[in-house]
Amino acid sequence: MRKQSLPIFTSFILAFITSAFAADKPVSFSRPDLAAAATLRERALADGTAYQLVTSLTMEVGPRPAGSAGDKAAVAWALREMNKLGFANVRTVDAVVPHWVRGEAEFEVLAPFPQPMPALALGGSIGTAGEGIDAEAVMVKDLEALAALPAGAVKDRIVFFSNRMERTRDGTGYGKAVAVRANGPSAASALGAIGVVIRSISTSDQRFPHTGGLRYAANSPKIPALAISNPDADALARQFESGKPVRLRLKSSSRDLPPAKSANVVGEIPGTDLAQEIVILGAHLDSWDPGVGALDNAAGVGIMMGVAKLIAGLDVKPRRTIRVVLFANEEFGTSGSLAYVAAHEAEMARHVLGFEADFGAGPVWRLSSRVHPAQLPVVDQIYRALAPLKLARGGNEARGGADLDALGKLGMPILEPNLDGTKYFDIHHTANDTLAQVDPEALRQSVAAYGVAVWLGAQYPGSWERVVAPKPPRR
Amino acid sequence: MRKQSLPIFTSFILAFITSAFAADKPVSFSRPDLAAAATLRERALADGTAYQLVTSLTMEVGPRPAGSAGDKAAVAWALREMNKLGFANVRTVDAVVPHWVRGEAEFEVLAPFPQPMPALALGGSIGTAGEGIDAEAVMVKDLEALAALPAGAVKDRIVFFSNRMERTRDGTGYGKAVAVRANGPSAASALGAIGVVIRSISTSDQRFPHTGGLRYAANSPKIPALAISNPDADALARQFESGKPVRLRLKSSSRDLPPAKSANVVGEIPGTDLAQEIVILGAHLDSWDPGVGALDNAAGVGIMMGVAKLIAGLDVKPRRTIRVVLFANEEFGTSGSLAYVAAHEAEMARHVLGFEADFGAGPVWRLSSRVHPAQLPVVDQIYRALAPLKLARGGNEARGGADLDALGKLGMPILEPNLDGTKYFDIHHTANDTLAQVDPEALRQSVAAYGVAVWLGAQYPGSWERVVAPKPPRR
Repeated sequence: MRKQSLPIFTSFILAFITSAFAADKPVSFSRPDLAAAATLRERALADGTAYQLVTSLTMEVGPRPAGSAGDKAAVAWALREMNKLGFANVRTVDAVVPHWVRGEAEFEVLAPFPQPMPALALGGSIGTAGEGIDAEAVMVKDLEALAALPAGAVKDRIVFFSNRMERTRDGTGYGKAVAVRANGPSAASALGAIGVVIRSISTSDQRFPHTGGLRYAANSPKIPALAISNPDADALARQFESGKPVRLRLKSSSRDLPPAKSANVVGEIPGTDLAQEIVILGAHLDSWDPGVGALDNAAGVGIMMGVAKLIAGLDVKPRRTIRVVLFANEEFGTSGSLAYVAAHEAEMARHVLGFEADFGAGPVWRLSSRVHPAQLPVVDQIYRALAPLKLARGGNEARGGADLDALGKLGMPILEPNLDGTKYFDIHHTANDTLAQVDPEALRQSVAAYGVAVWLGAQYPGSWERVVAPKPPRR
Repeated sequence: MRKQSLPIFTSFILAFITSAFAADKPVSFSRPDLAAAATLRERALADGTAYQLVTSLTMEVGPRPAGSAGDKAAVAWALREMNKLGFANVRTVDAVVPHWVRGEAEFEVLAPFPQPMPALALGGSIGTAGEGIDAEAVMVKDLEALAALPAGAVKDRIVFFSNRMERTRDGTGYGKAVAVRANGPSAASALGAIGVVIRSISTSDQRFPHTGGLRYAANSPKIPALAISNPDADALARQFESGKPVRLRLKSSSRDLPPAKSANVVGEIPGTDLAQEIVILGAHLDSWDPGVGALDNAAGVGIMMGVAKLIAGLDVKPRRTIRVVLFANEEFGTSGSLAYVAAHEAEMARHVLGFEADFGAGPVWRLSSRVHPAQLPVVDQIYRALAPLKLARGGNEARGGADLDALGKLGMPILEPNLDGTKYFDIHHTANDTLAQVDPEALRQSVAAYGVAVWLGAQYPGSWERVVAPKPPRR
C-alpha cells in the first residue's frame, strides 16, 4: 500500500464517498434480536462445546498437515461433529493441497564451540543431500541487512537471520518479522548462499523452534532452510560475536510428494427470510505437524462451531444463513479457501458478511471491522451489545485471516472480534501447540464475543453493503 | 526415617543433649567481619561473574553428561576458568563415571487414537530391540496404585504412570513424585511389564519431556522406560479415559558404554590462621544431555565460583580455606563426590562446613541449616547479616544437595541458602534448560546470599561442631 500512488488513493476516497451516499441509512436492531444476543452471550460464557471440540480434534486427530493421513482424519472428524451438532447441509468442498513431508532436521554448530541445537525445517523447504551442508556462516539481522552486504559475502555460505520479533497484542510484530521466513531463503540463494537458518518468528524464551511456510522465488535455486529457537539463536549470535569463524552443519530430509486431495468442510444454520444471504464463519482445519494445532487452529474451529451451535439453540431462527466453513490447507497457500471461492463463484455476491477465527484461543479484546464506512454505525450498535465483555473498539481496517483474503478482495464486509495475540507467537507453529495452551475461560469468552457479533450480523435489518476499497495486502 | 524405632530416635536426642553441653558457647562475629560481609553482599549484587560463567559454560561447552566429550570439555573449562579467576591449588580429583548414551527415543499411541508424542529415555534405561515394543497399556497413578493391581494385570503390558507432581517452592513436590521415575520401571518389571512410560516429573505445561535417572533393581529384568511431557500425559490419560483399549509403541536406542574417566575440579581461596579447616562449596559440573544445563547446574557452578572470586577480592583474607569443588557426575549416582570423599579420607574431619548450590539460579528466599543445635545462635547471627536480602528463616533440617550426602553423613555441618524452586521443575532435566531461563538479577542475589553465609562461615570465631544426628535420607 505504501508505494501506491496518490491518484489511486484519491479514487478510493471518491468511491467511498460515492457509495456512502448510495448506501442505505443504517437502521437499528430489533429488541428481540438484542435480547437474543444477550441470551447467546450468557449461554456462551457457560458453554463447553468449543473446548470439547478442541479437546476432541487435538486428541482424536492430532497433527493434520495438508495431504497427511491426519488431514483426511480431520475432514472425517469435522463431518461427524457437524452432523452431531445438527448442522444443515453438511458437506465437503474438494480442494487439492500441496503435500510436503517434514522428515528429520539436524542442526549443529561445528565451530567455534560445537553444539547441537533443535531445529525444524521451514514448510515447503527442500531437503539436503546425504550428510547435509557443512559451511562457514554469515549472520545478518534481516533482509535489509542481507541486501546491504558486499557482493560475494554469502557465496557458498550458510546465512543466519538473527532478528527477533516483537511481542504485540494484535500480531503486528509478526507481520514485521515474518518476511525473513517467507523470503529469506530465496533472497540468500540469489546471492549465492547454500543454506539458511532463521531465528524462529517467535516471542518465546522456551526452546521450541517454530516452523512456517516459505516461498521460493522462481529465479534462484531452492536451498534448505531451518528455524531454531530464540534461546539457541541467542547462543548462536554469541558465537558469532566471539569474532571467530562460525561453521554450521544442517541436514534435512524434507521433501515434496505429489499434491493430494483434501476438502473444506461446510455446515449451516439455515436462515429464514434472508436465507439466500450467507454469513460465513471461517477457520482452518489443517495444522502444522510438530504440535497438535490446538491454538492454530482447533481453537478457531471450536469457536466457530460453538457459535453456530449456540445460534441453532436460540428460540429465534437467524434471518440470514450462518455457514461454517472449515478450510483445508491454510498453512500452505490457502488452496482450500481458493477452491471454496472457485466452487461457489455464482454465489459470491450472496456472501454478505465474513468472520474468521485464526489467532488462537482468546480472549477477544477488541472489535474491529472492514465494512462500508456508511455502515460503521451498525458496527457501533454491535459493539454496544458486546459491552458486558468490555472490549476495546478497533478501527475499520480489519483484514480477517488469510482464508478470507479471496472473499475480502471481492468486497465482502468483515467483522473481526480480535483475539488477544500477546502470547500467541510463543506457541504458534511449534510442537508446543497443545491443549495445555488453551484457557477454557478465554475460549468461552471468545465464543460469546463472536456469537453476539455473528448473530447480530445475521439479523441486521438493513443490507450489508459491499466494501469498495481493496482489502489491504497481507505481508 | 518414619519406620525407625523409638529407641534409635531417643538415642539421637540424648546424643544431641550430650554434645550440646560439650559444645563451645557460640561467640559473636567481629565487626570487621560483619563489615566485610556487607561489602561482599553489595559487590555481589552488582557483579556479573556468575552470569558470565553460566553463559560461557553453556555456550562454549553445552551439554556435558557423564562420560561424554562435553564432560571432558567441562573439566578443561573449569580448570581454565578457576585459573583465570586466580584460585589457588587448582587441580582435578579423578572419578570414574558411568557412560550411558541416550540415542533416540520414539513414542506413539497406536490405539485408540494414533498420535506420536515427543519422549525422552530415562537416564540409565536400556534400549529396545529392533522396531521397539508394541503392546497394550495399563495406566496407574503411582507405585502404590501399581502395587494394588490384581495379579497379572500388567503382565506383558506397558505401564503408564500418570501422577502429576505438585509445584512447591522448596522442592518437596519433587521428593514426593520422583520415586516413580527412580523405581517405577523395576516395580513394573517385577510384575511382568515389558516397558514403562512415565508422566515427566514436571510442573510445566510446556511440551518438554523431562529425563532423569532410574535405578534398576537387581531382582527383576531391566525394561525400557521413557518420559513424556505433561500435555502429552494429559492427552494419553484422556485416551485411557475413553474406555477403549490403549496400545502404545515405544522404541529407544539407549545403551551403556564402558565406564569413563572424568574428574572433580577443585580450587581454593586459602585460609589464614585456620587454613587447615575447609569450608567446601559444592556444585556439579555434569549436566543432562538434552539441554545445556544452565539451571542444572551451570547456575550452581557460577554461584560458587562467583562467591569465591568475591571473597578473594576482599581486603581481609578468610580465616578458613574456601574450597570450591565442581563435582563430576551428580546425575548418575554422585560417583564424583564419592571419589572426592575417598581421595580426601584423611582430611574429612577438616571439612568443617559445607555449602551446595544445585537448585537453579535463584533467588535465595530462605536460610536453612543443619548444624549442631547448640550452634543455631551462630546461624541466627548469619541470618541477621543477610537481613537486607529479606530472607525467611528456615529450620535445621537442611540436606544440602546430593553431592554433600557423603560429607553430611560424616557429620559435617551444612548451611543452606535456599534457592527458590517454584519454577525449577518446569525446566529441570529438559531440552529447555538454557541460559534464557536464568534471570541475571536473581543469580546476583543468590551470589550475595551465598557469599555472606560462606564468608561468615569461614570467619566464625568459634569452632564448627560436628552434627551428631544422621543426615535425613534422600528419597
